[in-house]
Amino acid sequence: MEKKILKYGMVGGSLSSFIGNVHRIAYNFERDVQLAAGCFSSDPDKSRETGKAYGLDGSRVYDSFEEMARLESRRADRIDFVDINTPNNVHYEIVKAFLSYGFNIVCEKPLCLELDQAAELEALAAEKGVLFAVTYAYSGYAMPKFAKQLIAQGKIGRIFNVRAEYLQDWLLGQIGEDGGSEGLLSAWRVDPALAGRSNCVGDIGTHIESMVNYMTGLELKRVQARISRFGHPLDLDANIQVEFTNGAYGQYTCSQVSSGYCNALKVRIFGTNGAIEWDQEAPDALRVTIKGQPTQVYQRGTDHVYGRAAQLSRIPSGHPEGYYVAYANFLKIVLDALRKKLAGEKLTEEDMDFPGIREGAMGTRFVHAVIESGDNDSKWVEV
Amino acid sequence: MEKKILKYGMVGGSLSSFIGNVHRIAYNFERDVQLAAGCFSSDPDKSRETGKAYGLDGSRVYDSFEEMARLESRRADRIDFVDINTPNNVHYEIVKAFLSYGFNIVCEKPLCLELDQAAELEALAAEKGVLFAVTYAYSGYAMPKFAKQLIAQGKIGRIFNVRAEYLQDWLLGQIGEDGGSEGLLSAWRVDPALAGRSNCVGDIGTHIESMVNYMTGLELKRVQARISRFGHPLDLDANIQVEFTNGAYGQYTCSQVSSGYCNALKVRIFGTNGAIEWDQEAPDALRVTIKGQPTQVYQRGTDHVYGRAAQLSRIPSGHPEGYYVAYANFLKIVLDALRKKLAGEKLTEEDMDFPGIREGAMGTRFVHAVIESGDNDSKWVEV
Amino acid sequence: MEKKILKYGMVGGSLSSFIGNVHRIAYNFERDVQLAAGCFSSDPDKSRETGKAYGLDGSRVYDSFEEMARLESRRADRIDFVDINTPNNVHYEIVKAFLSYGFNIVCEKPLCLELDQAAELEALAAEKGVLFAVTYAYSGYAMPKFAKQLIAQGKIGRIFNVRAEYLQDWLLGQIGEDGGSEGLLSAWRVDPALAGRSNCVGDIGTHIESMVNYMTGLELKRVQARISRFGHPLDLDANIQVEFTNGAYGQYTCSQVSSGYCNALKVRIFGTNGAIEWDQEAPDALRVTIKGQPTQVYQRGTDHVYGRAAQLSRIPSGHPEGYYVAYANFLKIVLDALRKKLAGEKLTEEDMDFPGIREGAMGTRFVHAVIESGDNDSKWVEV
Amino acid sequence: MEKKILKYGMVGGSLSSFIGNVHRIAYNFERDVQLAAGCFSSDPDKSRETGKAYGLDGSRVYDSFEEMARLESRRADRIDFVDINTPNNVHYEIVKAFLSYGFNIVCEKPLCLELDQAAELEALAAEKGVLFAVTYAYSGYAMPKFAKQLIAQGKIGRIFNVRAEYLQDWLLGQIGEDGGSEGLLSAWRVDPALAGRSNCVGDIGTHIESMVNYMTGLELKRVQARISRFGHPLDLDANIQVEFTNGAYGQYTCSQVSSGYCNALKVRIFGTNGAIEWDQEAPDALRVTIKGQPTQVYQRGTDHVYGRAAQLSRIPSGHPEGYYVAYANFLKIVLDALRKKLAGEKLTEEDMDFPGIREGAMGTRFVHAVIESGDNDSKWVEV
Repeated sequence: MEKKILKYGMVGGSLSSFIGNVHRIAYNFERDVQLAAGCFSSDPDKSRETGKAYGLDGSRVYDSFEEMARLESRRADRIDFVDINTPNNVHYEIVKAFLSYGFNIVCEKPLCLELDQAAELEALAAEKGVLFAVTYAYSGYAMPKFAKQLIAQGKIGRIFNVRAEYLQDWLLGQIGEDGGSEGLLSAWRVDPALAGRSNCVGDIGTHIESMVNYMTGLELKRVQARISRFGHPLDLDANIQVEFTNGAYGQYTCSQVSSGYCNALKVRIFGTNGAIEWDQEAPDALRVTIKGQPTQVYQRGTDHVYGRAAQLSRIPSGHPEGYYVAYANFLKIVLDALRKKLAGEKLTEEDMDFPGIREGAMGTRFVHAVIESGDNDSKWVEV
Repeated sequence: MEKKILKYGMVGGSLSSFIGNVHRIAYNFERDVQLAAGCFSSDPDKSRETGKAYGLDGSRVYDSFEEMARLESRRADRIDFVDINTPNNVHYEIVKAFLSYGFNIVCEKPLCLELDQAAELEALAAEKGVLFAVTYAYSGYAMPKFAKQLIAQGKIGRIFNVRAEYLQDWLLGQIGEDGGSEGLLSAWRVDPALAGRSNCVGDIGTHIESMVNYMTGLELKRVQARISRFGHPLDLDANIQVEFTNGAYGQYTCSQVSSGYCNALKVRIFGTNGAIEWDQEAPDALRVTIKGQPTQVYQRGTDHVYGRAAQLSRIPSGHPEGYYVAYANFLKIVLDALRKKLAGEKLTEEDMDFPGIREGAMGTRFVHAVIESGDNDSKWVEV
Repeated sequence: MEKKILKYGMVGGSLSSFIGNVHRIAYNFERDVQLAAGCFSSDPDKSRETGKAYGLDGSRVYDSFEEMARLESRRADRIDFVDINTPNNVHYEIVKAFLSYGFNIVCEKPLCLELDQAAELEALAAEKGVLFAVTYAYSGYAMPKFAKQLIAQGKIGRIFNVRAEYLQDWLLGQIGEDGGSEGLLSAWRVDPALAGRSNCVGDIGTHIESMVNYMTGLELKRVQARISRFGHPLDLDANIQVEFTNGAYGQYTCSQVSSGYCNALKVRIFGTNGAIEWDQEAPDALRVTIKGQPTQVYQRGTDHVYGRAAQLSRIPSGHPEGYYVAYANFLKIVLDALRKKLAGEKLTEEDMDFPGIREGAMGTRFVHAVIESGDNDSKWVEV
Repeated sequence: MEKKILKYGMVGGSLSSFIGNVHRIAYNFERDVQLAAGCFSSDPDKSRETGKAYGLDGSRVYDSFEEMARLESRRADRIDFVDINTPNNVHYEIVKAFLSYGFNIVCEKPLCLELDQAAELEALAAEKGVLFAVTYAYSGYAMPKFAKQLIAQGKIGRIFNVRAEYLQDWLLGQIGEDGGSEGLLSAWRVDPALAGRSNCVGDIGTHIESMVNYMTGLELKRVQARISRFGHPLDLDANIQVEFTNGAYGQYTCSQVSSGYCNALKVRIFGTNGAIEWDQEAPDALRVTIKGQPTQVYQRGTDHVYGRAAQLSRIPSGHPEGYYVAYANFLKIVLDALRKKLAGEKLTEEDMDFPGIREGAMGTRFVHAVIESGDNDSKWVEV
């Protein structure tokens, strides 16, 4: 059966954009989605150059996102959804504009930088009834989905502790041997005007929060945090204690200055009947230890991995699927859900198997709570 | 500067084709290459359906590869190269047809099944002066390129032993507990009419041979082999001793029935001054141990990885690039070389950084030598 | 040159004692130390049976530790030191008795259970000027010593964060799937009368504290903790945030109910110029990542490991030295220091390369602070 | 119940002997075995010094092994067995002497250097009916015993391929960058008069052969080998193909010049229903993959490890038992068997769970066959 071809517009994603290019390639994993419009840069020349390179009709390459939202909304062949991957500090206004016109939205994380923005967008999205995805794309990997399934089936019993971390070292050059500020290789990341209240927690700490929530369904209640800025305006390292609404608790840590780590998002979930562990740097494996049994290492694509993780598996086991496939899987699920929505079908929980605006807003709230705790002698702060 | 858009045709790669889809997605990582023609299946209906799905002009979707080669060769806007990804047993005739018309070729491995075919194609390609790539695509990963560079720089001294393996277990169901034949899940793989003289050595053993040659430049001289067919017409497991033309030697082993292994291509190269190891299942790392020093683990995308491996790195370190990126890198190098060739520039050795027809022919010769040794009490057989 | 033979007495360590037997075997690694007296059990019959099995002169096998301390103190050939490895709850009184008579002491951890006891013993030991070792024996492994040396040399710069854990799962059977109490396989461990204020933190959390202090020299200032008792009187799982007196901070976690972990003490130390990691379950390796360099894996016994770690290395690299060797190394250093002390030589800091009574007292203070924080909504508690 | 105290004599093992000290420490793990006599060196002064240090009665410290064998054989309180750990080249004559007097023997590997010696000793031992152990001590680790048990239970079906290796790099300094001889740090090892026909294969290759035989019971039939001497009189690197008497086959490789490896004995056994892997450098784990199931990692000392491996486990899981414990376990089994023999009980196969003279002789035959093949263009040579 032929699938309906979905048309999307992009805000951000000029030719030199890293993450825009990742989105484009990820959509290209599918045959049934096409780029149809865009405002690829706040610089109209760059936007047009990009539209041309992508072979777009010039009339659908826009000089501003407001114009794009307004004009696209009037077209009979309007885009089915917009993909927003601009710098973080303008997410809010762009999302708001497209929500106003009722567009379905795929938005890069973070949803926005401020608490009131998050609340406003969440309310507006609910009012408009649009489909909304926030690209915490690591949830697109096959094995976190297998973890989610095993946990939902009760395999590891009742979760009591979550130990999770996201460590990098690429900003180590920004601190001196004495622990003070050194250089500014990525100035925007530690500039509050562009990055908001947090650098490290906002950029990668939120991935911990999101992935744990994705796998377990646990909701954060409050946090205690120790953060470190090393003389910069924003944080580069944080240790966090968390408590969930159901009484379970956890320990998170994130850093951009921890030598020896590239992109080490590692989640370990401990329950009364076993534990599950997943590591983004070796994403095709899942370690599972059921009480009284030897540790089992499940590999994506093998006969013993079933359910959603098996359906999404694209290539034979042992060929690493990697980061682009995580994005491609993430977007494929969004596209399938959107297609169902456009066909007037009811969306099930399984269809909505991706972080949405609620999770996006939670990311913003998590960041604010962590920084507030860090700035107040690690006191408990409600999320 | 704008790059010339290259147009390619595809033979094979119908909608349900696995490897054809991999090629298509890999080309889509680039912006400057477009599918322009195709004979996607030996079934004309399937071919047309595929062409339509890809949005091709109907006049360039062909019913047979001969027709495609002939008609494309007459067009002013003829394709710049053809990508062949059909079943293995028809590679020979398709390659021959396109060579005859002087097309540049990207061909899936194996180049062909028979020794005389290999010799014939090698001679014809030389005569025609075309650019020819055989997609031993694992060489597209960044870190084997870093290994190649370190070895060429003499970091590990003179190589004396190569220990390499490629283990899988996905055909374990095809042998019974008594070691006899059981079921035939993938019948064509053990059917000599379709797979030629070998199943396991041909499918994966050749990747060992190719990768070792790629990293080290060593040329095989002769082999000793113990193969096992478990009651099937073709092999599923093989242990191989090799000797190179320069006197170095090695030990290879490949299997599709080795429990616990998914796609474990692992190459370990031992020199008088150190050793280098690479594992396809964790492709972003390279283990290097220089004499008298602790083992060093290099990670793709970090500051300490330089040269070609750094240039090809697409995403920040610690985000696994995976199998599709290996293909994308492989093809990107081919496309860049082709663009230079079409511009009349001289191609350097660095431009030609991919297995070509010579390496493809070596694959066929390797398979024949191994099977002949295996069938003759493991005697030495010249490659 | 002949070394003086040291004579020791043992309190605890009857034939069926696990840890007593470990001590005995560890002393047997050396030739220059002999068991000469003992009160091996609070049950005189067991004590005598043990003394006989060890071939002791019956006059030096005692019915009570008080008698042993008193009578040994009067002998011309009195023991050179006493080794105490009884149940934890009687350490205090035994240590006190032997200190009163001025004996040098090797005492199993914990030093004692109560804060006032710790202060009293610390003062008494100082007054008596004895040599005192508390067997946090993991510091006897070669590679933590190499870590200590590299850190002292400034290789990783200024330490800002320590992430360390000690996870086990052997008490998982003591909690039900609902998180409540289940069974009591090791009742004494969760009996406050015998184990004091803590089970998990006291038993294994203290090893984290001790090892971090050993490697780095950092002193704890305060802690925040989340502990979990699962319906038992004492804790089985704890997440801890720590702050050191110099402003560095850290995150500890320990558990006896974390599925998939046997005895996983893992310490990761992050500095402004690099990081060092050590894992008790693979004790012969040390991972070191200096800023801008690939991770290096040092192996005990190789040419590139130098200093104290090299001197202590007993067998060729790659033969795991293991737990008994950690004890043997620990005790060998104590014995060498004691021999120097008895010879009237001045002891250097290097001679005293083992946790002493100060570190033992810190263990008690750490436990109390963690439990107090855990019982008071994770507030900061000074250590 | 009290166990009979066994008395042993030692040939070799002077104070400065490495392996003699390992044996002594390993015996000291038990309480029921005592050193009673010795000829610790071919230098009588050294022998006496050693005897004194061990507290032996001077009348039982001998100047020559012949004297020791003769005089001990006449004593009513003669030693129960002799432990031989001299240099390899004198094993033969010492074993022969003690066998002549009917002593039970524990002998370091290799049993002897020549084929005729092996045959002679094997016959003599059979004639005398003594208990004979050859210390291929790696079989003393707990997890190879668990592997042996799982294999005997048929868990992995019928074995068809064994891939095993033993790699070291400590002699890398003995070869130059050009692959020729460099220095002679360990001259005796490459001196045929002292080391016999082989260095590397004899020293470590035999451990592969022995461990595979121990785990699987497979008997070697013939070998093909490629060896490398790098300008020295004896080998430092070898690749070997093997065939077993039952038709199974395997691939072995051993080296003392493979950079990055310390003492890496790794055995992988592949059967029609699964595979088992063990690594001497991480000896407490066993990887098992049964067909169609995820890989399972068994850990020594946990509830799911049963049988002999559980009985021998000395310390809680996760505390590495290491090399000394392997020796201690090995010797404990020998001592238990000897005690039964001395009590006139019948020894079962389980009692005799250690390599004996037959396996010792096989080691010698293996070495000769490998070297003969290596010197004859890798032809098949019967073992």
